[in-house]
Amino acid sequence: MAVIGGRWCGQVVRQCKLMGFSGEIWPISTSSAEMAGVPCFDSLDDLPGVPDAVFIGVNHTATIDIVRKLNAMGVGGAVCFASGFAEVGAEGKARQDALVAAAGDMPIQGPNCLGFVNFMDGVALWPDEHGADPSESGVAVLSQSGAIGLNMTMQKRHLPLSYLVSLGNQAQSGVAEFIDSMLNDERVTAIGLLIEGLPDVPRFAAAASRALAKGVPIVALKTGRSEAGAKIAVSHTSTLAGDDSLYDALFARYGIARVDTLPVFVETLKLLSMSGPLAGNRIVSMSVSGGEASMIADLAESRDLDFAEFSPEDHARISATTHELVHVSNPFDYHTFDWGKREAQARTFTEVLRSGYDARLMLLDFPRSDRCATENWTAAIMAFAEAHKAAPGVSLLASSLPENMPPEVSRLAVDLGLIPMFGFDEALAALDAAATIGRLQRQAAAGRGAEPMQSVPVLAGDAAKVVDEAASKRLLATFGLPVPEGRLVGRGDVVSAAEDIGYPVVLKAAGSHMTHKSDLGGVALGLEDAEALTSAADAMAGLSDRFLVERMQPKPLAELIVGITRDPQFGLVLVIGAGGILVELLQDAQSLLFPVSRRDVAEAISALKVSKLLDGYRGQAAADREALIDAIMAVAQFAEAHADSLIELDVNPLMVFEDRTIAVDALLRMV
Amino acid sequence: MAVIGGRWCGQVVRQCKLMGFSGEIWPISTSSAEMAGVPCFDSLDDLPGVPDAVFIGVNHTATIDIVRKLNAMGVGGAVCFASGFAEVGAEGKARQDALVAAAGDMPIQGPNCLGFVNFMDGVALWPDEHGADPSESGVAVLSQSGAIGLNMTMQKRHLPLSYLVSLGNQAQSGVAEFIDSMLNDERVTAIGLLIEGLPDVPRFAAAASRALAKGVPIVALKTGRSEAGAKIAVSHTSTLAGDDSLYDALFARYGIARVDTLPVFVETLKLLSMSGPLAGNRIVSMSVSGGEASMIADLAESRDLDFAEFSPEDHARISATTHELVHVSNPFDYHTFDWGKREAQARTFTEVLRSGYDARLMLLDFPRSDRCATENWTAAIMAFAEAHKAAPGVSLLASSLPENMPPEVSRLAVDLGLIPMFGFDEALAALDAAATIGRLQRQAAAGRGAEPMQSVPVLAGDAAKVVDEAASKRLLATFGLPVPEGRLVGRGDVVSAAEDIGYPVVLKAAGSHMTHKSDLGGVALGLEDAEALTSAADAMAGLSDRFLVERMQPKPLAELIVGITRDPQFGLVLVIGAGGILVELLQDAQSLLFPVSRRDVAEAISALKVSKLLDGYRGQAAADREALIDAIMAVAQFAEAHADSLIELDVNPLMVFEDRTIAVDALLRMV
Repeated sequence: MAVIGGRWCGQVVRQCKLMGFSGEIWPISTSSAEMAGVPCFDSLDDLPGVPDAVFIGVNHTATIDIVRKLNAMGVGGAVCFASGFAEVGAEGKARQDALVAAAGDMPIQGPNCLGFVNFMDGVALWPDEHGADPSESGVAVLSQSGAIGLNMTMQKRHLPLSYLVSLGNQAQSGVAEFIDSMLNDERVTAIGLLIEGLPDVPRFAAAASRALAKGVPIVALKTGRSEAGAKIAVSHTSTLAGDDSLYDALFARYGIARVDTLPVFVETLKLLSMSGPLAGNRIVSMSVSGGEASMIADLAESRDLDFAEFSPEDHARISATTHELVHVSNPFDYHTFDWGKREAQARTFTEVLRSGYDARLMLLDFPRSDRCATENWTAAIMAFAEAHKAAPGVSLLASSLPENMPPEVSRLAVDLGLIPMFGFDEALAALDAAATIGRLQRQAAAGRGAEPMQSVPVLAGDAAKVVDEAASKRLLATFGLPVPEGRLVGRGDVVSAAEDIGYPVVLKAAGSHMTHKSDLGGVALGLEDAEALTSAADAMAGLSDRFLVERMQPKPLAELIVGITRDPQFGLVLVIGAGGILVELLQDAQSLLFPVSRRDVAEAISALKVSKLLDGYRGQAAADREALIDAIMAVAQFAEAHADSLIELDVNPLMVFEDRTIAVDALLRMV
Repeated sequence: MAVIGGRWCGQVVRQCKLMGFSGEIWPISTSSAEMAGVPCFDSLDDLPGVPDAVFIGVNHTATIDIVRKLNAMGVGGAVCFASGFAEVGAEGKARQDALVAAAGDMPIQGPNCLGFVNFMDGVALWPDEHGADPSESGVAVLSQSGAIGLNMTMQKRHLPLSYLVSLGNQAQSGVAEFIDSMLNDERVTAIGLLIEGLPDVPRFAAAASRALAKGVPIVALKTGRSEAGAKIAVSHTSTLAGDDSLYDALFARYGIARVDTLPVFVETLKLLSMSGPLAGNRIVSMSVSGGEASMIADLAESRDLDFAEFSPEDHARISATTHELVHVSNPFDYHTFDWGKREAQARTFTEVLRSGYDARLMLLDFPRSDRCATENWTAAIMAFAEAHKAAPGVSLLASSLPENMPPEVSRLAVDLGLIPMFGFDEALAALDAAATIGRLQRQAAAGRGAEPMQSVPVLAGDAAKVVDEAASKRLLATFGLPVPEGRLVGRGDVVSAAEDIGYPVVLKAAGSHMTHKSDLGGVALGLEDAEALTSAADAMAGLSDRFLVERMQPKPLAELIVGITRDPQFGLVLVIGAGGILVELLQDAQSLLFPVSRRDVAEAISALKVSKLLDGYRGQAAADREALIDAIMAVAQFAEAHADSLIELDVNPLMVFEDRTIAVDALLRMV
């Protein structure tokens, strides 16, 4: 490898030597004779060969020239350390475009990045210190923030690292390309992302899809949630589909576990790296105290984890090994009767571990060895390890306080095949993620994975025009969305239209200026006869000269909202939520990226709180879910067919009945 | 002090000597000549005086006799270590009653407890090891679980401990009495509770109220949430007011911070112990990286903390001290321009700290000192300390990973007056709790604290009778709850009743068997004329021979539920929530303990998601909140007047209008 530049390059050479890099290092400097003891070359032309990789530690202008030359030489790839590119504005952006052009086909990392470390082969094209141990395999971490990436390497939790990559400006090779690289290295057990956003969502989605198919789990700590300001939008859909919920939709689609804190990031990656994703979400815990059992049960409540009760057979087997006063249940408080008795504990623990759970937790806070005798705690760990050996599976040793898992104990756990977890809540978060990823991977393996995302052109929303309700319904109906029978007529024809349709009817003032027609008094419901209709039409005289007369719908089982919004990054987004007037109050919505399948829609409906209304809530009839899915798929198909012109779409309410679904109001914005 | 018994008593003597207890220790044993080097007495009669405190380490039967004797001797108090009392069933309960009787006026702790440690005076009536340092003042921890209490003492986070108390069966002195004792010791800075339940809620509430008045904060980690099974109940109210929400109501009322994990418990108590409650919730953070700034902003989103923006003046002062490319905002990313430059950083940090925030966070993950140069990190800490000295206040040094706050760094922080916090999320949880407690303490100091809880008799719910809607409404109306105009009539009189009231009307089949009358078809709404009314009455003919004819109400701004439930522990509970058919679907409810004030009710309404409907939602009128509070207070007053007979009460829906509130349906159960 070669390094070009000043002080920072010396650090690169030093880090490589510290890590025992076995290849040749060729420093290039016009001012120094050596870097960290390695003699320097004067220029690229003096090198004895073509380097595989180059760290460029010079200023932004010089970087461009060097990249051009490296590409011409046929170099494998280069790290561009310099800043002063797109992150500083328009002038920098032009410079960055020039850099990408200069690189041609040669992969470049950055600019404005720290480079990368390969902990397996002792390579550090990284001009700074780090805290990680060498490894034979492990987790690859791709980080937008150099500081957070570095902080993460300082962990003392047995997270094996394979790569640390600083993403920088991602001018050419970005997170998607690095995921692909990592998938080519069989030593990468899992991938961790520390990101604030994504430069290219469809490219990322494609890489994530390949990772899912290959069974390499991804965990993301994506920040910036609080900065995503509310968009100014006509539709409710756009308000519901905030930037951050689109990331949630993306991650859910491709089986990426999202976490919020660095400790959970580390613990989740460690669990995935050491055990792989879980076969299910049934877990068991064992503790010497009922307090700890109660605590872990409470913490699991908000997660999709199941402390499933022992079967009668398991119960009998376990009970037979322990004191009669021990109440065998899950979480399992094994009491102090056998405390300190390794063999007796091993018998009990083995029967617990034979009970077929997807993951098994031993809760144990190790005491301070400088003050307390610790033999009894060690005996419990050894008994757990014996049981793990007799009944293999995913076995975790978890402490409630991280410091109550001292280094010698976590080392012992790893040596015994147990996964040390620092913190109960962190352990449960990791198990939840591992179970979810496992389920998505199995779906993908069975050919039921998500399809690649669709790219759609970016449209200028301010050029969009509102399509009024009558026209919106007509358009959507051609794609199969059921709408009420209705007539668009002048003031003089409302009564004849109603007689044509049959009472009771609804009267609505028509026109694209009636976006919030309810608020303007432009809607009259439940008109039973000509008299009521006429007086309603009189009251709306000032609003419009065109009126929509429609058949009044009875009270539905549930009102949903179905909408489409368009995001420059995520393309079209389908939103399904609790509808009617409470739509923004309840914030009960699911976002789906395109293309959407019937299964996606069915799962999104089931994930809504209001889905209970569809299942025969409080003695009511159950809804025809297939008819509901048909209606939503009609909206999705309309959106796909108009991907080049649709800005946003609201169907609200979508009324759901026992035997049908019908769109009572609709609004489109298109260019 | 004296200890009586065998092996465990030797441990007590040993622990006291280890902690440097300076008083006399009198071991009593019939079989040993000495304990841990201290000569034994043969019996209580041989003691040279009356002990202040006695640890009783003998079996349950002998314990009762000894307690009787100690009481007669005038001993200060005793720890009852033996188990085999109420925790083992009826026979043990009888034994426990005998123990309490034997104790007379002498305070006893336990039985079935580990005793207590006083870390300030070197007293350990505690037959086990622990991990805490001696202290001059600090946090008192009262723990139901010996194991969790012990685990907590092993923390390495600079939590100063004053007492550790094992609560055991709380036969006589329980959590309330221990809180009172702690309030008598000025060295106790805060109180931590590790509990699964409370033996006597009103006594606890009284002690918590005294702690609030005295300004001693309480933090509770209360487990057992997941075990609280749903009650079988007629009313929705009882379903909404699950056991655990009653603890939430209790803790909120008395300014007790509730936490879910042991790390947050420790960090919150440490913050409260070192800084006291906060004067407000405006916080600022500083970090060298934008990634950390983004992360802390995201984590704060779900909390009641305000990263308030700098004022223009503050902004100008701060900007003047740093590089022009640094964008000054809060959370504050101070960039790397001054990295390693202590004096320059101190100038910037000082201006930030002069900006008047209630708490100031420095985010810093210290690198591994065995691998990395650390001077630059130390420089940042020293600069923060200088700023803290120049602009005093609550200053926290927080790391994202606990292990990135090594012992020498947290020690340095403490010595410099900075509070070391292990984990960003833990730090924010602690700040949130400290701000909330501060607010409640100020309210209490201003005479606006909660009144003492009311005790109500425990009633056997299965003896209760349902009071039908018409009678329920009549009863509630006498307390000022507005109800619709209506008549309770036989089948033949429904039309004349309707004509009397005026159409449109509602018809309801009456009688206490009509609890779920909607589901049974016993409700007809919006009947416009005699024909519609007659046919509705015909349809209900099989349900009842009595009918309630009421004036139909128009569509309200919002439908609430107001209810009363009765808990054996918490007494009467007032529940206010989103009502109508969606009540159980939304689970949008607040529970209040009695007595309730208008302010309590107003705050509970504002805490509901549906409260937005009352403020002029989407162009609708705003509700008359005073009329709403009047209606709810009428329900509360009814409940207080019937505290000896009311089992549960549902008013659902309570319809809220622009100018009035009216109870459209009501149901009582009373004995």
